[in-house]
Amino acid sequence: MRIYDIILKKRSGLELTREEIQFFIDGYVNGTVPDYQASALMMAVFFKGMTDEETAVLTDVMAHSGDMVDLSELGDNTVDKHSTGGVGDKTSLIVGPIVAAAGLKMAKMSGRGLGHTGGTVDKLEAIPGYKTSLAMEEFISLTQETGLSIIGQTGSLAPADKKLYALRDVTATVDSIPLITSSIMSKKLASGAKNIVLDVKCGSGAFMKTYEDARALGENMVRIGQKCNRNMAALITDMDRPLGNNIGNALEVIEAVEVVRGRKKDDLYEICIALAGTIIAVSNKVTVEEGKRIACDMVASGKAFEQMKKWIAAQGGDVRYIEDTSLLGEPEYKKQVLADRDGYIYSMNTEEIGNSAVILGAGRASKTDEIDHLAGIVLNLKTGDRVKKGDVLATLYASKENMLELAEKRFLSALEIAENAPEESKLIYETIIDKLDIDKSISGDVK
Amino acid sequence: MRIYDIILKKRSGLELTREEIQFFIDGYVNGTVPDYQASALMMAVFFKGMTDEETAVLTDVMAHSGDMVDLSELGDNTVDKHSTGGVGDKTSLIVGPIVAAAGLKMAKMSGRGLGHTGGTVDKLEAIPGYKTSLAMEEFISLTQETGLSIIGQTGSLAPADKKLYALRDVTATVDSIPLITSSIMSKKLASGAKNIVLDVKCGSGAFMKTYEDARALGENMVRIGQKCNRNMAALITDMDRPLGNNIGNALEVIEAVEVVRGRKKDDLYEICIALAGTIIAVSNKVTVEEGKRIACDMVASGKAFEQMKKWIAAQGGDVRYIEDTSLLGEPEYKKQVLADRDGYIYSMNTEEIGNSAVILGAGRASKTDEIDHLAGIVLNLKTGDRVKKGDVLATLYASKENMLELAEKRFLSALEIAENAPEESKLIYETIIDKLDIDKSISGDVK
Repeated sequence: MRIYDIILKKRSGLELTREEIQFFIDGYVNGTVPDYQASALMMAVFFKGMTDEETAVLTDVMAHSGDMVDLSELGDNTVDKHSTGGVGDKTSLIVGPIVAAAGLKMAKMSGRGLGHTGGTVDKLEAIPGYKTSLAMEEFISLTQETGLSIIGQTGSLAPADKKLYALRDVTATVDSIPLITSSIMSKKLASGAKNIVLDVKCGSGAFMKTYEDARALGENMVRIGQKCNRNMAALITDMDRPLGNNIGNALEVIEAVEVVRGRKKDDLYEICIALAGTIIAVSNKVTVEEGKRIACDMVASGKAFEQMKKWIAAQGGDVRYIEDTSLLGEPEYKKQVLADRDGYIYSMNTEEIGNSAVILGAGRASKTDEIDHLAGIVLNLKTGDRVKKGDVLATLYASKENMLELAEKRFLSALEIAENAPEESKLIYETIIDKLDIDKSISGDVK
Repeated sequence: MRIYDIILKKRSGLELTREEIQFFIDGYVNGTVPDYQASALMMAVFFKGMTDEETAVLTDVMAHSGDMVDLSELGDNTVDKHSTGGVGDKTSLIVGPIVAAAGLKMAKMSGRGLGHTGGTVDKLEAIPGYKTSLAMEEFISLTQETGLSIIGQTGSLAPADKKLYALRDVTATVDSIPLITSSIMSKKLASGAKNIVLDVKCGSGAFMKTYEDARALGENMVRIGQKCNRNMAALITDMDRPLGNNIGNALEVIEAVEVVRGRKKDDLYEICIALAGTIIAVSNKVTVEEGKRIACDMVASGKAFEQMKKWIAAQGGDVRYIEDTSLLGEPEYKKQVLADRDGYIYSMNTEEIGNSAVILGAGRASKTDEIDHLAGIVLNLKTGDRVKKGDVLATLYASKENMLELAEKRFLSALEIAENAPEESKLIYETIIDKLDIDKSISGDVK
């Protein structure tokens, strides 16, 4: 078998076999297939696509390129969620406790933030004592005991995807649906959960800018996950404004606690109930409505908050900071951003608001940057809200005073205040679940 | 400027600017643009193509990546020809003397053979004493004195094309018309001639298997050459059977001498007269018919043969071997290939006949192989000819006896003998000359 022939075959639009995909990935990981042939193949895939069968095989082969987490001792109700990333997205901190309280097992590996999007691991590190790195056995046994554990991704999870993504990132071959699907789903497969719910964001703060693109990706991931023997669902949700009011690591922990305690019932609460409800529906074979009812109960009964404290404590976190989040403190400097006119917030460029938070120190511009866990933004008003001149739009927090002005400028440039209110937009566009007719078996041995 | 953005732009089907193409080629040659980004860009070009403007700029930029041969002291009637390569193609050895006898100046750099196609430089080295490597000044002054000089390509001729072609060769991005055009034409531009005629072959022994593909390439090269201020023409000619009867280096010199002396008037003669006539037409602004009449005169009058001897002698070749080609000798072993039935030669897989000659030692399977100048094949019969069982189809020549049987097998497998004669096919499909309406100026400084 020659990689040249595989490139030529894909260039001609033909379907690659499992053997050919395996040959490519094996060779790419061990270095016998050089970068320049891999990038030519990726560009051919960009133009010619991949069938569901090819995408499922690529996903499976990349998943098996590293460690496969074995969650079988936790039974069949292991769950995972994945968000394609956004600004103010702290849903894992809320959904995890809710579904664990409902009896499901979530052993979740999360990433760090980069650019305008935050990462769950960074947020958890704002809690004193919380350990984001555990040995695999401890990770699984904690999940067994408390129903929930969240740690950072280990280096050996789908290493083929890691290497291939780095190449795609510099060769303009990222935005291909089968390649995005195989990248995300290979890590999800390797993470071991049986039931997976995806939160595919669309809008100005998301990777997918339009509903149509987000929907195509969501459908593709659900189909591929099903072909790989997972129970799947995907929600297409709005990222045309930040999610919730708080952006920044400690600030997002504070907001998550408020939602889990049932004290804050806004867009963030609504999305978390939908995600948790869908996870319960997929795992327990109930309707999404029934799943959401159970999710609401977990919050209202206080069970979700009890679950949250049990989980944080089990991972070494100091629960006093959860019971009284004011103990997390504030950075030295803050600044209120005021409205300079009357009107309505017509739109928010969410990516730019995320970048404003990065300037304050809440995120990373490059992988090696340090994070200031206390820095960030609290939004008082969001898209559609009425404003009067002098109203506080948001408060910016930073440990370096000189960053405040720069961040304020960036923040204001992201906001459009107009005379008229914008059309109301949806928060949740669609739930893709169990309605796709799929041949669930893919060729070859898939676990 | 970032190469990433250039890849993305081409991927979207947009036209690259001169600055962008220059940035890519400069970076690729000096190593700041790595192979994996270059191959992704090449694959994007494969799918999205290039406009004439882009192709002309790429050609020009690659030509200027190394030495530009300055033939200005030879005047405006400098000429060059290029063949896309075939089996038994010794036209340069014949066309050169004819056009030089007609007063034109051909300072030609030629390549070596690889795979089933031969190279002019290898053929010339079959003549004892002939020097294929000359200093640039001597090359030009010999052309000034005798009208003709043929040497091997120097290493610094369009080095950008050399590096890029090697990459395309292993990433399935060779067969893109703008890329083939820029590869061939960059070397032709760098070689300095004002008038260029291309012999684009099509058929089983050619790179372009169909007339349509060959025609598209020929037209593209003529347009791009014109945009780069060259006088251009292209002939689309048949390579569904070997050209002439002799395949192999000394054997092809012998045949070329026969044609130049006017002793052999077959398909090879016809194509050489057409090529030489077209070169004369393009250079002297006469009709192709008039050019061909002049070319015939040069052969009939003996002027072409006198010219041939003058040229060979000037480059150190022993002219006695040209006056009496039997002095070139024969290899130790030969074998007659006999027909095993009555019928007609219905088709010849020309590439396979070329490969059979490589087995005999006449060509190279890989770049470092040594050539046996005396080895080769003499065809007695070609496509369309009637055969009787026991007729000699061809004679094979080799210095190693054990190669004869292997080569015979390969040769016979390439031949189809049928009861009925095949339809007659054309030798010259078309002459593309001066009928394309072109904007001759390309942006930027082209010499």
